[in-house]
Amino acid sequence: MLRILTSGESHGLGLTAIIDGFPLGIMFDEAFINAKLEQRQKGFGRSKRMRIETDIVHCLSGVSNGFTTGNPITLFIENKDYKNSFKSHKEFSIPRPGHADYAASCKFQIENLQNISERASARMTAMTVAVGSLCEIFLQNFGVSIIGSVTQIGSVSIDDKDADFVDFERLNKNVYQSLVRCSSAEASKKMIAAIQEAKKKNDTLGGIFQVRSYHVIPGLGGFNQLENRIDGILGQAILSIPSVKGVLFGNILETHAMYGSRAHDPIMFDSAAQDIYRPSNHAGGIEGGITNGEKIIITGYVKPINTLPKGISSVDLKTAEQKKAPYFRSDVCAVPAISVIAEAQIALELARLYLERFGSVHLAEIKKNFNDYKQWLNTRFRKIDDTDSDNTI
Amino acid sequence: MLRILTSGESHGLGLTAIIDGFPLGIMFDEAFINAKLEQRQKGFGRSKRMRIETDIVHCLSGVSNGFTTGNPITLFIENKDYKNSFKSHKEFSIPRPGHADYAASCKFQIENLQNISERASARMTAMTVAVGSLCEIFLQNFGVSIIGSVTQIGSVSIDDKDADFVDFERLNKNVYQSLVRCSSAEASKKMIAAIQEAKKKNDTLGGIFQVRSYHVIPGLGGFNQLENRIDGILGQAILSIPSVKGVLFGNILETHAMYGSRAHDPIMFDSAAQDIYRPSNHAGGIEGGITNGEKIIITGYVKPINTLPKGISSVDLKTAEQKKAPYFRSDVCAVPAISVIAEAQIALELARLYLERFGSVHLAEIKKNFNDYKQWLNTRFRKIDDTDSDNTI
Amino acid sequence: MLRILTSGESHGLGLTAIIDGFPLGIMFDEAFINAKLEQRQKGFGRSKRMRIETDIVHCLSGVSNGFTTGNPITLFIENKDYKNSFKSHKEFSIPRPGHADYAASCKFQIENLQNISERASARMTAMTVAVGSLCEIFLQNFGVSIIGSVTQIGSVSIDDKDADFVDFERLNKNVYQSLVRCSSAEASKKMIAAIQEAKKKNDTLGGIFQVRSYHVIPGLGGFNQLENRIDGILGQAILSIPSVKGVLFGNILETHAMYGSRAHDPIMFDSAAQDIYRPSNHAGGIEGGITNGEKIIITGYVKPINTLPKGISSVDLKTAEQKKAPYFRSDVCAVPAISVIAEAQIALELARLYLERFGSVHLAEIKKNFNDYKQWLNTRFRKIDDTDSDNTI
Amino acid sequence: MLRILTSGESHGLGLTAIIDGFPLGIMFDEAFINAKLEQRQKGFGRSKRMRIETDIVHCLSGVSNGFTTGNPITLFIENKDYKNSFKSHKEFSIPRPGHADYAASCKFQIENLQNISERASARMTAMTVAVGSLCEIFLQNFGVSIIGSVTQIGSVSIDDKDADFVDFERLNKNVYQSLVRCSSAEASKKMIAAIQEAKKKNDTLGGIFQVRSYHVIPGLGGFNQLENRIDGILGQAILSIPSVKGVLFGNILETHAMYGSRAHDPIMFDSAAQDIYRPSNHAGGIEGGITNGEKIIITGYVKPINTLPKGISSVDLKTAEQKKAPYFRSDVCAVPAISVIAEAQIALELARLYLERFGSVHLAEIKKNFNDYKQWLNTRFRKIDDTDSDNTI
Repeated sequence: MLRILTSGESHGLGLTAIIDGFPLGIMFDEAFINAKLEQRQKGFGRSKRMRIETDIVHCLSGVSNGFTTGNPITLFIENKDYKNSFKSHKEFSIPRPGHADYAASCKFQIENLQNISERASARMTAMTVAVGSLCEIFLQNFGVSIIGSVTQIGSVSIDDKDADFVDFERLNKNVYQSLVRCSSAEASKKMIAAIQEAKKKNDTLGGIFQVRSYHVIPGLGGFNQLENRIDGILGQAILSIPSVKGVLFGNILETHAMYGSRAHDPIMFDSAAQDIYRPSNHAGGIEGGITNGEKIIITGYVKPINTLPKGISSVDLKTAEQKKAPYFRSDVCAVPAISVIAEAQIALELARLYLERFGSVHLAEIKKNFNDYKQWLNTRFRKIDDTDSDNTI
Repeated sequence: MLRILTSGESHGLGLTAIIDGFPLGIMFDEAFINAKLEQRQKGFGRSKRMRIETDIVHCLSGVSNGFTTGNPITLFIENKDYKNSFKSHKEFSIPRPGHADYAASCKFQIENLQNISERASARMTAMTVAVGSLCEIFLQNFGVSIIGSVTQIGSVSIDDKDADFVDFERLNKNVYQSLVRCSSAEASKKMIAAIQEAKKKNDTLGGIFQVRSYHVIPGLGGFNQLENRIDGILGQAILSIPSVKGVLFGNILETHAMYGSRAHDPIMFDSAAQDIYRPSNHAGGIEGGITNGEKIIITGYVKPINTLPKGISSVDLKTAEQKKAPYFRSDVCAVPAISVIAEAQIALELARLYLERFGSVHLAEIKKNFNDYKQWLNTRFRKIDDTDSDNTI
Repeated sequence: MLRILTSGESHGLGLTAIIDGFPLGIMFDEAFINAKLEQRQKGFGRSKRMRIETDIVHCLSGVSNGFTTGNPITLFIENKDYKNSFKSHKEFSIPRPGHADYAASCKFQIENLQNISERASARMTAMTVAVGSLCEIFLQNFGVSIIGSVTQIGSVSIDDKDADFVDFERLNKNVYQSLVRCSSAEASKKMIAAIQEAKKKNDTLGGIFQVRSYHVIPGLGGFNQLENRIDGILGQAILSIPSVKGVLFGNILETHAMYGSRAHDPIMFDSAAQDIYRPSNHAGGIEGGITNGEKIIITGYVKPINTLPKGISSVDLKTAEQKKAPYFRSDVCAVPAISVIAEAQIALELARLYLERFGSVHLAEIKKNFNDYKQWLNTRFRKIDDTDSDNTI
Repeated sequence: MLRILTSGESHGLGLTAIIDGFPLGIMFDEAFINAKLEQRQKGFGRSKRMRIETDIVHCLSGVSNGFTTGNPITLFIENKDYKNSFKSHKEFSIPRPGHADYAASCKFQIENLQNISERASARMTAMTVAVGSLCEIFLQNFGVSIIGSVTQIGSVSIDDKDADFVDFERLNKNVYQSLVRCSSAEASKKMIAAIQEAKKKNDTLGGIFQVRSYHVIPGLGGFNQLENRIDGILGQAILSIPSVKGVLFGNILETHAMYGSRAHDPIMFDSAAQDIYRPSNHAGGIEGGITNGEKIIITGYVKPINTLPKGISSVDLKTAEQKKAPYFRSDVCAVPAISVIAEAQIALELARLYLERFGSVHLAEIKKNFNDYKQWLNTRFRKIDDTDSDNTI
């Protein structure tokens, strides 16, 4: 069973993760992980901290000669501005609206919000990206590709947000060419302008992102208990990313208002391919809590960053005086970064489900089990032509 | 730790649940639970099955003299049309688009979809409602009220869907007076008309619902690991309800496009009450993955029912022939029922968090721990006036 | 993931279990399960209750046409003397030493011990046997056999308790021929006499049992976290059986005092079989927290039954008066029954580990994955002769 | 919920642990933890490695100003001989009998045992001790003391091993004065002689240890599911320590052969103290799966160390040739070290149960909840004298 814990504060020594139950034989591709960390950090609208720290993953255990050994994996990301950090690492007691500050001051019955804010900070998501990227490397062995992209920043949305990219490579290329991870070059320009405008106003922006997962095997998830349903599992993964407050699967924003006869995806038989196909994908790759082999399309809604140079009205918990919330160095817009974190979160949950279904000890065995299953899927209808015998096992 | 398993098929003997870790001393209010079961069943747009079966909960263990004993609780809901059910309980191999049928035929490598559909059926949510209602009874001891209501069916939406009901009693009364659990009598009429129209067309409808949780204590949830965040937890609970494909917290549908300076909820001090208050609730009761004491407002998107009299194109898995998906007795619109299931799912997760925070052995002890915490919250700012001493513990 | 909850009181309607995550395609062999239930009930030294109730398992869900469907399985065992039970189901406040009574009166802060004793009763282990027997049926598909036997009752111990039965069939036959599940006919007679003697004295007896698991595949368990170790997992399973207060693996009662050079099991190569073998099995089938392919041998220590006709000194919790603990109908000796429960507990944990390693969706797939692994094990040394190439995957 | 993962290899950079769910406000007493680490390392019979490395705990997160913050805690213990370690860190394919080597070569389908042995090594228990010591510091706030001691090494056993130390302080003092953590000075001398003798013979020794937990609150554990029973939980914790192959609670080695009338512990009322007391403690502090307030006494059996200078017969997995198992630097006897690890394992599980019962957010709140419960226990019988009213809640 894949079990993961992360730790570390925003201005501490660094972030740590332990990954237990990860199989033997996965390439520990540092370059891939670091490139993802870079994607999380750059992006127009990010603060200077992002430029100070170039996050680099260090592996402290569980890898030998470039491959995972089956032992627990320890990842570490140093906080590069640790020496500077002591400056910012100080007491404060005025909760920032939108942050965990006030709610956590209740939970922990404290007034000094410093320790709380150190962990509640989105800094911790750097480790989420590192862990998720390792999961993505694992998934690549099974043909899975995941790409997060931005479809709206502030009120600027991509013209053609429904352009449902059939082709991972093209979408991926577009996203990596954009400073805001938007697949449209034109929209990217407008989004950058919106960010610049917000920055001038000492204000912040939210928006919308999408994550698409390609070539996920059908049959993951379940319905025996409600918590087995993969939409719930992936939905939690996305909603757990700081600042994400909404998640939609497939085309539900349209289909909820349609007649049922038009909202579902017919099942068609392609006699040339001797396989079924779906002419549409309103369901976004999930039916009845289980993957159906179509692209998994998830849309996430992001609130604007809540640490603002202009401050928001708040109250000093020590004195009960009305004051402006404090401003710490922060970004203008985190939606591009969040689209990268979303990739990581989806990769993590999909990896968990692949390991549950196909074995978890070492890659060669998992691949063998996977290929046997895939072989059955690929040929289940061909057998019908060949014989009349029962083709199920 | 609260652990729950449910079981039972749509046309089997009935549904069972075992609830382990539920505290001693909770009133087992059968009438309350049965009333909730009735709410799930009735509602305009439900099929005749709903009228055949009046679901009644039976308690087989864990309750003595009307109160929980601390022993594991067994609930049972008989399938009243069991005798008739054998008729419908038959083999079929044409997957219904939108259902688990096709995805599960892959997962289990089978062609006969009968057993799959028996459990994947939304029938199982009757037990979800029973279990959640017991959790709601528990939560009433702490002042929590939860109400699910319908804000859109098909393209008919409530005029004033943002009417953010401060008052549980009024909202509750309105919802219970409506055949479609909509707080507006006018909109209810239009929704009923839309359902009648769809029925005439042999078609089905989806829509939108909201669940509001009142008087939830601040401080539940956490941010140490992403999976501790209560938005993720509640979001999964909602997305795991069959047919729900989207979930939004608070006003994110508006705030994602706003400037940060307007999207967050100021923290204000009321010197008369000697307590803080929030003039707005865009966040929907959750900040930083933790409850902040405001109303928790969740919006869910429901796809139209996927079993249609008119049928949808599909393929016979045994013969690879193109056919219409089969039609089994079904509803026209399940949004009102889902708004009841959503109450149950939220109650279940909130109960889990109350038990984790305040103890889990028996009600008297949990209440005492809760009241001590509440007392601190209520007086934290009053102490400031009284003394200069540190008022934190 | 295999998840199981059980419920039900000693004098309630009956016992229920829900088994979630059990694969599709396992034969639900009622006769096998009922025979195990009978083994738990009979045995010399059991009370009259055992004769009143012949436990019979009922399956309420998850099985169709005699095979598991992949849906959650519900098992129910009726309490046949339910009507009589109301007599015994009454208040009492004098805790029985050795029972949960006093400790639970603290935990729940109560004086009336009736509800506590209803669940703390060993009656619940009837369901443990039913669930474990289903797991045993699953394991038979992989050649695993499990047999629990009695090696000591009171001070009568089997002469040759170390006779390490290589042959399951012979041991099984002997055990089933004995009224006290002891492999020696002679010792059985003496044990029966000891029980009769104790009964005459209004007293009770404990003893020792062993559980042997044959043909468990090597490679189950792990060492990444201490809680992965299979000795800890199986040890907990045994120690969780009411009245069991000790557990030993292999020959540790001797080897702990030996020199290391004699305490471990050499690894030898059998060139005829082209496979390794172990000339001894001091380790009892587990090395480094992982099964090594040898017989798993576990010894359990059972305290005497703590409900005695002659009573033990105790205190009335309501009046603080010194009194004799009450006597309810009870057995003289439960060791034979516990040896059956131990089989069930081991079967359950082994099934869990087989499902984790080889897949959990349906039997055919699990068998295929298992056979691939077994094939590798069987031929790993043969390849050495054939080629010089790397024979690992 | 307390969740812990550890990682790190025997000859890697070091060992890491992440502790999630640990409350705010616990003193991070480095000196206490390091003293425990030293106890694990020294002890007569330990190898030179123990002298090279003086293990020191480093805290990388979760602590501020010497107290835990409620954030996840990261602990790190450097492998001091890391530079030397590359020498020993090399390939080998001859499994050491008694080690995980062979069983893990099956599990992972590999021949090179180096990576396996790096994690399967008992080196990882250094981190177990660090984590457990932090849990022990937490438990000290509730009056709990835990002491592990050695009662047998090889065939030398303490004369009076049943001397059931009522007094923690005296036992603790004796244990810390002994080089082999044995409470008898005389037996210690003989044990040291036995170790010297074994060393001369290039052989190794096992033995027996005990762990006593003082002042554990009654009411921890449960019986609703078998896995709630605290004897099973603590038993697993002990059996999961490498080399431990047996665990006994209380006096079961004697009581299993006694009549029930003598094997249980009467409940007596002390009218002076107005409280109940137990004149004996055969049960070892646990009845019905729940703590009863008496001392928890656990005995563990340890096999001799399996890495021997004289080697044990084995087979080269690459060539199938019969060879001697390799010898790596190792100890002669690990029983004293294991008695320290056992303290840590018990502390960890008890801390988990205290957190579940009394709250888990911060120390002040947990103490308050605990004290309310303790107050009830202390006065439950006094109330009887005062009034006739119901004294339960």
